[in-house]
Amino acid sequence: MASILPASNKSMTSDRNTYVGKRFVHVKNPYLDSMDEDILYHLDLGTKTHNLPAMFGDVKFVCVGGSPNRMKAFALFMRKELGLEESGEHIKDICAGTDRYCMYKIGPVLSISHGMGIPSISIMLHELIKLLHHAQCCDITIIRIGTSGGIGITPGSVVITDTAVDSFFKPRFEQVILDNIVTRSTELDKELAEELFNCSKGIPNFPTLIGHTMCTYDFYEGQGRLDGALCSFSREKKVDYLKRAYKAGVRNIEMESTVFAAMCRLCGLKAAVVCVTLLDRLECDQINLPHDVLVDYQQRPQLLISNFIKRRLGLHDQTS
Amino acid sequence: MASILPASNKSMTSDRNTYVGKRFVHVKNPYLDSMDEDILYHLDLGTKTHNLPAMFGDVKFVCVGGSPNRMKAFALFMRKELGLEESGEHIKDICAGTDRYCMYKIGPVLSISHGMGIPSISIMLHELIKLLHHAQCCDITIIRIGTSGGIGITPGSVVITDTAVDSFFKPRFEQVILDNIVTRSTELDKELAEELFNCSKGIPNFPTLIGHTMCTYDFYEGQGRLDGALCSFSREKKVDYLKRAYKAGVRNIEMESTVFAAMCRLCGLKAAVVCVTLLDRLECDQINLPHDVLVDYQQRPQLLISNFIKRRLGLHDQTS
Repeated sequence: MASILPASNKSMTSDRNTYVGKRFVHVKNPYLDSMDEDILYHLDLGTKTHNLPAMFGDVKFVCVGGSPNRMKAFALFMRKELGLEESGEHIKDICAGTDRYCMYKIGPVLSISHGMGIPSISIMLHELIKLLHHAQCCDITIIRIGTSGGIGITPGSVVITDTAVDSFFKPRFEQVILDNIVTRSTELDKELAEELFNCSKGIPNFPTLIGHTMCTYDFYEGQGRLDGALCSFSREKKVDYLKRAYKAGVRNIEMESTVFAAMCRLCGLKAAVVCVTLLDRLECDQINLPHDVLVDYQQRPQLLISNFIKRRLGLHDQTS
Repeated sequence: MASILPASNKSMTSDRNTYVGKRFVHVKNPYLDSMDEDILYHLDLGTKTHNLPAMFGDVKFVCVGGSPNRMKAFALFMRKELGLEESGEHIKDICAGTDRYCMYKIGPVLSISHGMGIPSISIMLHELIKLLHHAQCCDITIIRIGTSGGIGITPGSVVITDTAVDSFFKPRFEQVILDNIVTRSTELDKELAEELFNCSKGIPNFPTLIGHTMCTYDFYEGQGRLDGALCSFSREKKVDYLKRAYKAGVRNIEMESTVFAAMCRLCGLKAAVVCVTLLDRLECDQINLPHDVLVDYQQRPQLLISNFIKRRLGLHDQTS
């Protein structure tokens, strides 16, 4: 397979989109550019200590996910898929000076972990978006690849999110700013979701669908689990809630998509959420898959995104 | 210094408290005991795969903090302080099978990381509380040791929380259960806070105070920072908000204390929050301390908790 390393100023093409001009990252903070130095504390990077344009200027695809091990595995996988294994391109954690997040760069692809939950991904996104801004990146596509609980679909299915909704099935993210609550839209890029869905059709035995993703602040009580340390509702109430979610279009539940959709939208990043489901919540609460099945399921979003990136880069030979 | 390993059924004594009878952990879930197996998924532990009473039955002190590296450092420090360095007591990550959290056990002390933000610590607490229940632990004291932003106090000060408050300065945690919002109290154990404060007096050059801690869902917009990727308010609005917080009794800001206080209270765990402040938010937003100062500050809660645990265990010789 041919090795690729697109130059930062080459315009990206895909089957569906041709960008006219560059799409830069919008930082919406009037104070930022007047700062003498910007320390991206939780990434252990900064504008005075690091040459961010040189380090990141050619990034086109940003992939984020909760688990640091999984994001390292994705980086290793992408290195292989992009034919960069023998090009001296090493996999090292760019954020090794902190244990809050990890980050790997493979050619035009950045792979970053974000921990679990809205606050954790939100800290990372603020600093990542500033990083992309300082590095003068353009035409970025950002994709969250994660795990989730499914509702009424076979475990192992991959859900591409059209809209992220909150616990009340509303397409909104409520951001507390000082002591005000501001409501933000959580719509994702429809064309990107379609493009990813089309990609999935090329992979054999790869159950994929587009649907709403519900994002909660809690894994147990907030997702109607009967197996937490606290549980004050009945099995019937749980099933009723999940069925109402299904009726509202929700096909899976995770814990980061609303803030991810809201922030990316505000900052002009084309964004998608692609999560595999590890169980059907109408059937059970506990994740008790055999280890090898779990590993296989967790690789599915990675495989899809790798195929998508290769298509976008014009590397159409399916290696997987 | 004498080595100690209190037996699990020995009652704990302190300068102030003598417990009459055992205080068990209350799991408030009628479904739990009828489960054939309980898989603590994010800890990679389970009731069928692990002998939890044998592994954890003698635990008396649980210390939690955001950063995995810091919680490992605390474990190493406690091993030294409890004189267990040469007893063959090894430091190994009990949750090594997962990268979501890390966990170390040093005699009666458990040290666990919880990541950043309410959702992340909440997942850990559900599974930790079930672990302590399955292991039949009793008379547990749980302390969160963390970092925070101060308001109107010198950086490096240690704040012992009396009450955790939300972004509106209210002593409450709003838990979404299915699609209802339930409000829970965030009061912490007053006697434990006093006991910790008394401990701090024995440590030279150790600025410590008791105050309210504000817990937010966001590090940037939610804490009034002017240096995020998004900022829609003025410097004046920021300062006004932080001054109102100070007036309401808030002395520091972090991202986990309300749910920690609420869950521990509901489950009968005596709980405290002890955070060092890394900056004064009335002065600045960015954390730009020299590395050695940062390391020194981060060790302060560890030092206080180590002294507290040694006192509780009757090891009054101050080794630090």
